[in-house]
Amino acid sequence: MKENKHKMLSESQNIVWHDGAISRNDREMILDQRGCVVWFTGLSGSGKSTIACALEKKLITLGHLAYVLDGDNIRHNLNSDLGFSPEDRRENVRRIGELAVLFADAGLITVTALISPYRDDRDRVRRKVGQERFIEIFLDVSLDICERRDVKGLYKKVRNGEISDFTGIDAPYEKPLNPEILIDTSRLSVEECVNTIMRYFEKYNILRVP
Amino acid sequence: MKENKHKMLSESQNIVWHDGAISRNDREMILDQRGCVVWFTGLSGSGKSTIACALEKKLITLGHLAYVLDGDNIRHNLNSDLGFSPEDRRENVRRIGELAVLFADAGLITVTALISPYRDDRDRVRRKVGQERFIEIFLDVSLDICERRDVKGLYKKVRNGEISDFTGIDAPYEKPLNPEILIDTSRLSVEECVNTIMRYFEKYNILRVP
Repeated sequence: MKENKHKMLSESQNIVWHDGAISRNDREMILDQRGCVVWFTGLSGSGKSTIACALEKKLITLGHLAYVLDGDNIRHNLNSDLGFSPEDRRENVRRIGELAVLFADAGLITVTALISPYRDDRDRVRRKVGQERFIEIFLDVSLDICERRDVKGLYKKVRNGEISDFTGIDAPYEKPLNPEILIDTSRLSVEECVNTIMRYFEKYNILRVP
Repeated sequence: MKENKHKMLSESQNIVWHDGAISRNDREMILDQRGCVVWFTGLSGSGKSTIACALEKKLITLGHLAYVLDGDNIRHNLNSDLGFSPEDRRENVRRIGELAVLFADAGLITVTALISPYRDDRDRVRRKVGQERFIEIFLDVSLDICERRDVKGLYKKVRNGEISDFTGIDAPYEKPLNPEILIDTSRLSVEECVNTIMRYFEKYNILRVP
């Protein structure tokens, strides 16, 4: 009975959407930039966090408001209740996607850095934030190179049998079919990667509101 | 076995905190304001969403970056997986708290509007964002007046037995012991409420970075 009543309250007619008088555009005018999601995807060790942070630094230096949502960091706060089962990993991506949509709505250049191995999960964020405001950046680096870098020492643990279900080894990674930007971080310096992204921003008027 | 391996990967040594080169202060310099959490709490119908949105509008008009996290709205996206059981309600408050901490870290004047009936839940956010950046606003209006307003028609449903565990009727509301601001919205207009909060911002240098 109590369960039923909870259910009734959770029906959509009981959750009233409170429409704010303020739109994304009002915030974009203040910031003189477009709220958007810059979604890095790639294997562990492909350079997502490194380039995301370098991009954030470049943008902030130029006076733009950018913010990095790093998958590992968010596991310490919002997603601290999640583990590493397949369901929890998808929930991790879903929540960071929703978080990114809110940040973009707030007008920020929102930079996410997490493996996000499934195409469906990434495309859901694309649909939510809108095609023109979703910039998918695929860091296309071979597993071999990522493993040789092994920044976090995770590949070693996988090979020692301490970790399973690891993306690229015994869990799938679905490459983006049509990413806005594809970068091979084994061929470009961090600075060159950032410049490539900045040129994209210029071309598509992310850094100013007409 | 697999379960164990998941567990091993979820151990904190496998989640590497990636420290950004950029601090909250860098973003605050760009925005010329202090990132903070303005946390409205009070019964359903006490005016949380209305005053939160009016405050956001006032701040945006003055060129400040503010963003409302409305409990009902967030249930449509980030918290769409949550129902109304006591555990889900606490998880709802926890996630919005973590969300608010991230928004404040990004430099925004972050305005939350949700009943948040438990003192513990609110105080956890206060500790996380820091005492000086947490502004708890208690909308102290009698149940009688909230029920007479019944903006969302929820009190009627409670009295008809369609909803149970409703804050203030058959679920507890723990008043803040020491809120930064206490407002009786039955005695002040929306504009007067906003002005009260703006005076607080002025006094505590929220709207400029020295």
